[in-house]
Amino acid sequence: MGARAQARLASFGGVTDFERIFHPRRMALVGVSSEGGAGFANGMLLACRAIGFSGEILAVNPKGGSFAGHTIFRSLDEIPGEIDFAVIAVPAPAVPAALEACRRKGAAGAEVLTAGFTETGTPEGRALEQQIREIAARGIRVVGPNCFGIYCPASGLTLLPGADLSRESGPVAFLSQSGGMSIDLAHLGGWMGLRFSKVVSFGNGADLREAELLHYLADDPETGVIAMYVEGVADGGDFFQAIRAAAARKPVVVLKGGLSEAGGRAVVGHTASMGGSRAIWSGVLRQVNATSVASLEELAQACLAFSHLPARVFRGICAVGGGGALGAAAGDAAEAYGIRLPAFASDLRARLEAILPRPGSSAGNPVDVANPFVPPAVLGQVLRLAAEDDRVDLQVLISLLYHYKSQARAIGAAVADITPFAELAETVAAAAADTGKPVVMVLPDLMRGPENLDLAAMMARAREEFTRRGVPVFGAVGQALRAIGHVNAYYGRRRAR
Amino acid sequence: MGARAQARLASFGGVTDFERIFHPRRMALVGVSSEGGAGFANGMLLACRAIGFSGEILAVNPKGGSFAGHTIFRSLDEIPGEIDFAVIAVPAPAVPAALEACRRKGAAGAEVLTAGFTETGTPEGRALEQQIREIAARGIRVVGPNCFGIYCPASGLTLLPGADLSRESGPVAFLSQSGGMSIDLAHLGGWMGLRFSKVVSFGNGADLREAELLHYLADDPETGVIAMYVEGVADGGDFFQAIRAAAARKPVVVLKGGLSEAGGRAVVGHTASMGGSRAIWSGVLRQVNATSVASLEELAQACLAFSHLPARVFRGICAVGGGGALGAAAGDAAEAYGIRLPAFASDLRARLEAILPRPGSSAGNPVDVANPFVPPAVLGQVLRLAAEDDRVDLQVLISLLYHYKSQARAIGAAVADITPFAELAETVAAAAADTGKPVVMVLPDLMRGPENLDLAAMMARAREEFTRRGVPVFGAVGQALRAIGHVNAYYGRRRAR
Repeated sequence: MGARAQARLASFGGVTDFERIFHPRRMALVGVSSEGGAGFANGMLLACRAIGFSGEILAVNPKGGSFAGHTIFRSLDEIPGEIDFAVIAVPAPAVPAALEACRRKGAAGAEVLTAGFTETGTPEGRALEQQIREIAARGIRVVGPNCFGIYCPASGLTLLPGADLSRESGPVAFLSQSGGMSIDLAHLGGWMGLRFSKVVSFGNGADLREAELLHYLADDPETGVIAMYVEGVADGGDFFQAIRAAAARKPVVVLKGGLSEAGGRAVVGHTASMGGSRAIWSGVLRQVNATSVASLEELAQACLAFSHLPARVFRGICAVGGGGALGAAAGDAAEAYGIRLPAFASDLRARLEAILPRPGSSAGNPVDVANPFVPPAVLGQVLRLAAEDDRVDLQVLISLLYHYKSQARAIGAAVADITPFAELAETVAAAAADTGKPVVMVLPDLMRGPENLDLAAMMARAREEFTRRGVPVFGAVGQALRAIGHVNAYYGRRRAR
Repeated sequence: MGARAQARLASFGGVTDFERIFHPRRMALVGVSSEGGAGFANGMLLACRAIGFSGEILAVNPKGGSFAGHTIFRSLDEIPGEIDFAVIAVPAPAVPAALEACRRKGAAGAEVLTAGFTETGTPEGRALEQQIREIAARGIRVVGPNCFGIYCPASGLTLLPGADLSRESGPVAFLSQSGGMSIDLAHLGGWMGLRFSKVVSFGNGADLREAELLHYLADDPETGVIAMYVEGVADGGDFFQAIRAAAARKPVVVLKGGLSEAGGRAVVGHTASMGGSRAIWSGVLRQVNATSVASLEELAQACLAFSHLPARVFRGICAVGGGGALGAAAGDAAEAYGIRLPAFASDLRARLEAILPRPGSSAGNPVDVANPFVPPAVLGQVLRLAAEDDRVDLQVLISLLYHYKSQARAIGAAVADITPFAELAETVAAAAADTGKPVVMVLPDLMRGPENLDLAAMMARAREEFTRRGVPVFGAVGQALRAIGHVNAYYGRRRAR
């Protein structure tokens, strides 16, 4: 831990009680209005109830009254007993007093959703944020201000507005200076099959931020992969130490925002961060063996690969698809990420060819199964045979399920009824388990117009069938191979150290 | 035109009648079976009827009978009068005789869907393909074999299986050695808002192929952008001349398959092509000012930009989004493609700030409008104000419409009813028209699980509202800027020559 963080901790003589922050039994919601409306605190109260927050919710507002069946306390002090955590969503000038009251009630931490601090660039904003820091130093940890808070599926804490996030926990943690990125990843990751341990949107990061949270997550047994969206860091030395220590233990995936001149301008107004140059960032991330990504989509895909694949380098793969151009695309993409597709020996080729439709198939690796309608059982056999090649560490199966729509149309059936996606998922998962070689699915989604909503529904269900069996699904072959490339780069470098 | 192509044309003493090939009035379908089933010819007959093919369909099969109300002729010779074009889908050994019969009936061309020729790697396959070439040289142009044929929305010719392709014509032509890629792009492009002049899947390219088709499309007034999926070329010199000539007149977007060793192995088995090295391809494409892309998705996105944006370089842009991380992402992506986001002068900033919600917004370019719920009218004003900066050539508006789902949930409404996508499309199109500065939309699609099909439906409708008004829509900001980068690179180099 860096000097600055240590000094802060020492200043209130103790270790931060993250347990009470991520799993509060008693949580105050400061700013709930009896008049309802679109206020953040009211939204958070409804979201916590909808998601099934497991603790007690205590609403606070000087005006009192009640909302959604909760009596509203007129002040924190009226609440009987201690609280563990608080959500503060009152106008910026009222934040310091509310935070101080939370501290007096024994809260281990509070998240401040309110904006209007340093990011405004005004002296008033800066002064208010300084007050938050001073109160924090007296013994309450603060997430924010200008953030969407914490999502912890195990306890039912949720981001704003996150009533619909999954209660299923998983290995992915996400630290984000941007609230928008945090809710976007929670939603995007949700249908991709990512499951989260903790998501922390920390906004301006007046108190708790990247370095300390990295140390915490590096130790957190529930977290297997740490993802971050960073705009700027408070202390370069602290951050460097923290990310190096974390990346030595588990993958750390970093999306750095504001690397360009215009992007840098955006982050100053967004979370009052200083960007830092592209060259410096890229050097630092490489040096500490962090995984650097260029977009939220790439970050999500990297997390999918890290959280679903064994911790190793996949040197050689087999690619299987229905249509020769798919194989060419897989081979080309693999090469771009340093992954080999070993050419199969003639006897293996012959055994594969014996079970594939002719003409139109080819079995040299990539394996072209000729068309998108090859039965799951045959695809399962292909995966089992190809796994016999010792040089194959992982397999990629590309399936253009959307072609079943034409079949369905021709015979007047519903596409979900004739597409064997559940059987395919079962077969693929079994082949992966029995051969000990993971299978990565690619399910491109090439028809998404209003006339193809039946197909959109089928694709969504198909994806679920795979992900609930632990088979990661990507939308394009290039995305899958880029993600596998990130896994290879991380474990390759870690082994080399 | 290259020596080889010229020699071929001269050999039957005339110019190819592409008009009769793309807009046949009388078309034979050879191989239609009275027993129905899943044969290609029966599928094609049904697809042509479903799409509303405007010519006469003449079914042929030695066994006679009828199918779907069409009397099946026992031979081509039984058909009274001439034919313009034919689709041949009979077993490979029967193809030469069928093709020769089409030639005798005066057909200008035929597409051979059947596989089982050179791509099999057998002497029989090679010999059969050589026969096709010899018949072609006597006076009938051949598309294929081993292909999905021609899609021409104006006439209603369609790919296999393309019953559901649009009848709306547009400026994008696609030449593809892969049938799968051709139907994939037709479907993907369909919902993205791409409209096609002609799509030609030419498979093994025994006769008509890349060089000659490029010459034709370069002259074709209906074609504004040419896209290609190439595995290998028949004659490097012919191809070089053809693509150089075409790219001097209109954008040519090239996806080259089989650049890697494994990808090359795939294309040999797919269309019997020789791949060619990455370095050679990249040099050639740059030299002729073709646009090189790495995936079908990138190809589609480049075509969207080329077909929707004016023919020029967009040096400076303004990026507008609801949430500061969007602006940072836009700025970073723009820089990666050499596009500037000029910082606005203080008076323009002040005028923008006056109409934006506070706090949370920032108006320096990128413009952060603070949240995803800013009314379309305000966004329209932002676009109009920002367009006043002379350095802004184009604007990118990022809208996270998916957030309306939370709103809808909170108030118990249907998301399509409360999301102002139609008003936004109208406003954006008007701002683009009135300011003379194009607007590119980014509508990320971050919730696609089974529980969000209402959202998928709304997003599909929203996209349609924009595209039918000529506003191109991308799914991620990086994709939009990469596509604009392709437009800039093409017109920048063209101007410099």
